[in-house]
Formats: sequence, C-alpha cells, structure tokens
Amino acid sequence: MNFTLNVLGTASALPTTERYPSAQVLNVRGRLFMIDCGEGAQIQLRKSGVSFLRIEHICLSHIHGDHIFGLFGLLSTMAMLGRTAPINIYAPKSFAPILEFFKTRFGEGILYDINYVVLEMTSPEVVYENRNVELLAFPLNHRVETFGYIIREKMPQFNVHKDAIAKYDLTLSEIGTLKRGEDVVREDMVIANSEAAYRPYNPRSYAYCSDTAPFPELAQWVKGVSVLYHEATFPAEMSEMAAKTFHSTTLDAANCAKEAGAGRLLVGHYSSRYPSVDFYLDELRSVFPESYLTRDMDVVEISFE
Amino acid sequence: MNFTLNVLGTASALPTTERYPSAQVLNVRGRLFMIDCGEGAQIQLRKSGVSFLRIEHICLSHIHGDHIFGLFGLLSTMAMLGRTAPINIYAPKSFAPILEFFKTRFGEGILYDINYVVLEMTSPEVVYENRNVELLAFPLNHRVETFGYIIREKMPQFNVHKDAIAKYDLTLSEIGTLKRGEDVVREDMVIANSEAAYRPYNPRSYAYCSDTAPFPELAQWVKGVSVLYHEATFPAEMSEMAAKTFHSTTLDAANCAKEAGAGRLLVGHYSSRYPSVDFYLDELRSVFPESYLTRDMDVVEISFE
Repeated sequence: MNFTLNVLGTASALPTTERYPSAQVLNVRGRLFMIDCGEGAQIQLRKSGVSFLRIEHICLSHIHGDHIFGLFGLLSTMAMLGRTAPINIYAPKSFAPILEFFKTRFGEGILYDINYVVLEMTSPEVVYENRNVELLAFPLNHRVETFGYIIREKMPQFNVHKDAIAKYDLTLSEIGTLKRGEDVVREDMVIANSEAAYRPYNPRSYAYCSDTAPFPELAQWVKGVSVLYHEATFPAEMSEMAAKTFHSTTLDAANCAKEAGAGRLLVGHYSSRYPSVDFYLDELRSVFPESYLTRDMDVVEISFE
Repeated sequence: MNFTLNVLGTASALPTTERYPSAQVLNVRGRLFMIDCGEGAQIQLRKSGVSFLRIEHICLSHIHGDHIFGLFGLLSTMAMLGRTAPINIYAPKSFAPILEFFKTRFGEGILYDINYVVLEMTSPEVVYENRNVELLAFPLNHRVETFGYIIREKMPQFNVHKDAIAKYDLTLSEIGTLKRGEDVVREDMVIANSEAAYRPYNPRSYAYCSDTAPFPELAQWVKGVSVLYHEATFPAEMSEMAAKTFHSTTLDAANCAKEAGAGRLLVGHYSSRYPSVDFYLDELRSVFPESYLTRDMDVVEISFE
C-alpha cells in the first residue's frame, strides 16, 4: 500500500543547475497528489516516470512564482495528452486571477474540468477525502497568503483476532461491534475490544510546510506526522534574513519536528546562496536526529511504523 | 567577433526527457538576443553559462505556451539578480495581455524597464539596430500571429588596401571616398573602388523561422542568410499533419533553405512522437546537403565566409 514521495525540486526563488523550483508528488495507495508546481515541474515529472494523467490533485501553497510557474505548462501538457478526468487545484484566493488568466489565454483545447478549491481556513480542515485518505490544509506564516498540507491515511477499522472469534464464538453482529472499536457486552460477560481486536496499521501521514516562518500553532497542527517536510531556506546563521523574508532556518524546521513529535523531518527550498547545503544536516540533527536533506529526484518511501 | 548560437530547447509542444521547449540565445559581438522562451529556459541558460543579465533582447515568435512559459520565471529571476538595465521584448500584439498580467501579478520588485515592441509588419522590417547589428522581424504562417527574425551584421565599411594608399598617394579625403564604396575621380584618372578597396568581411546573418507552415515569400525574405533555423516538427511522411497544424516537414525546411541559398540549415522543434529524430537528417540532406539537426545545449559558431 503505497505511500511514496517524489521530490521534483528543492530550490527556493532562484533555480540552480542542481535544483529545480519546488514541486513534489505524493502517491498514496495509487492516488497522486502534486504539491506545488515550480517551473520545469513537468520536465522533472517526465524524468521521474510518474504518470501525468494520474495526478488528481494539485496542492498549491502560495502564488509566488517559484511555486507555480510550472503550472501552465503542466496543465497544457495534460490537455495535449488528451486528459478528460477532472483535476482539483487547492490554493489561496489569490490564485483566482491566475487561473482565470490561464483559462482565458491558454484554456482552449482543455477538455477536463479544473476544480479550484479556495483555501480560507484559519486552522487545519479537511478539503478532500475518499474512503482511505484525507487531505487537510492550514495557514502558514509567509509574506503572502500561504497554506500547508497534511495528507494522511484514515484510521483503519479494527480487525478481529481469528482466535477470539473461535474462543468466544462471536456472532456477525458482535464482530461488527468490535470492528467499530467497541466492547462486546453480553448478559454474562464483557469482551474487551483491546483483547479481541487490533488496528491493522497506524495510519501514515505527510505534512508539507513551505514557505513559512515559524509560528506556535504549527507543531500542534502537524503533531505526530510520519514525515514532516518543512522548508529550511536558510542555515542557522541567517536567522535575521529568514525572519525578514518570512522563511525558516534549519533550527526552525528541526524545532518544529521535535515539538510535533514527527517520525522524520525532510527539508528543502534551499537558498541559492549555498551551492552545497550539506552543512545544513548537522544543524538539523543537533536538534532532531531523524532529519534528512531532500535532493531533486529523491524518492522517499513512507512506511508503516 | 562573436556570432554564436546557444540552442537551449528543441522540443515542440510537449517537452521530452531530452528536449526542453524552444529557446535560443544568439551572441552577436557580445550583444545577446534571446529567441523564444519555453518552460525551463532559465534552467538551460544557467547550464549553458550564458549570463542572464546580459540578455538585452527577447524575440518571441508567438504566444503558444511552448514558446513563452519560461518567460515569467526568466524575468523574475533577472529581477531577483538585481537587473536594472532595460530589456526589449519583441512580440505580436497578442502578447500584450500576457505582459500586462505578468506586470500586475509578478511585477513587484522588477526595477528594470521592459520595452515591449509590438510586431505588426507584413514583410521584413528592422525593429532594432545599433552600429554593427540589425534585428528584423517578418510574419510567418502559423495558427496564431507568428513572427520570424533575422539578426545580421550590418554591411561593413570598405577598407582601403595599404599598397593602394602608397601607390596612389591617396589623400584622407580620397580614403574616405573609397571607404564609402565610391570610386576616386581625379582630374587625370579614376581609381576604381574595386581595385583600391575591399569589404573586410561579408556580414553574417541568422534567421529564425518557427513555428510556420511553408509559404512562397519566406525564401526571399531569408535569402542568403549564413545560417537558417527552420522548424521541422515533422518528417516527410507527416506532411498532411504538418499542413493541418501549420507546421513544416523536413522537406519544407530544406526546400526553403535551398531556395533561399542559405549557408547552412539548422532544424529543431521536433514532434514528441519521435524519441529519435536522427532519420530526419537524410530527408533534409536529400534536398539541402548543408543541413544539421540541433540538440539541446548545442553551441553553433557562425563564422565568416
């Protein structure tokens, strides 16, 4: 049951020869969520082998160019490839004129619906769900309206231990009760849910927080995620510049991961001042050991605990 | 005296893993002309080592996405790099709302002037010139308003043979006469310009014709160019598709080069149906031997005859 992240671009503002601007694709059980779409995203997508036409959701954090200049090309290419399935785009309201412009100037020949979901929440809210997965959005702290995302598996139903079925001669109705997480109450006994049932897996989750300066609520909102992606545009020594530009340093990202009790921290959105960001890793791990630097074209498997 | 072409992208409509969408930079004596700006052009530029900030002119052929989706990123990046020198953008009038949108939504922080030169001519006209170089534009034959370009050195003044100066004891005024291409008329003799003077070089020229279906005037308009770049989206067998989409085949491109008496033919803008276009070369050379396929990141020196 897939939960795989393809990192397509790790540059901030200015791309480099090694880094494309921000774009990622998360595959959750075969459903594809694109997160941000910087220039060249479609080219990186093609290299990654991820199928364009299977992307169902595009989650945009904000309308700075380095997060959206790849969108027009991507939507156009999907049209040229004959897409008919609708696509959802989640974005702040500042995105409305940009989508309007695209549809007016480049929309001829687009045979699929673009469902624009306007983000306006002030705390995490579900913006999409299906049987197994939910997508939440929440505000971040940047120079323009910006939103972060959590994509997570829903809590699975309980499973009933086979030997409990035999031991207690459970009826179908009682099995249903246990699956819902309740105890089975008989005239003469109670069968505890904790004895007869179990969760088959802990739901996995991925949070994307970019671009943002730190703020107190964030760690609560992404509490317990399996993998937290948090921008670390700057190293620790550049904390003043980070604050001024409403970005984060390595220590900001690591502190958030620590406070949130995340499983793993991935960082990206590196300032172009630093051709090599290897030195970021020590700074991150000094606060949060399970920290990793993402690179363009990384594939990250997010496994069950 | 530089006359060098950097080919940044050779894809048509759909980029491939090997080909970025159309973009080129021509360096004429240190002055940089960008021609078209498909998605990812700034990334290819960075790889090529060509300096962004030295680009003075952006010549857009038409407003199909594969020729302009890299423009917003490029202009933004120039701003972030602190550009103050103005830039000229030559484009059809259909470009006006696109530039307007860019300035409105992404123009904050752009400290340089963008001089938009609207192309409306019905035959080749000079749209820019300096002491040594001129830029001409002319209409092409595509589904939307499209223009081709010629960038050429101006005809140099004549030089006077040193031994003629000695032989005839030429005065400064007479040298000036010869430099202007005239004969020197003395009371007792005429000194023929053809004997005493010579052109130091034949001006070099480059023509860019994409996207276009063939049409009769084109070969006349690009007559005698040193290097002709002509789109060859399709191979010969796809002539019906080419006609339908107002594109050219290999044979169309080669016939144009032959009729124009071009020095060399370069082709590009390859259909994504063909992962390899090697077979295009035979088709081209069957009509015009000095034909070459361009590839992404090619550097072409255009030398004096």
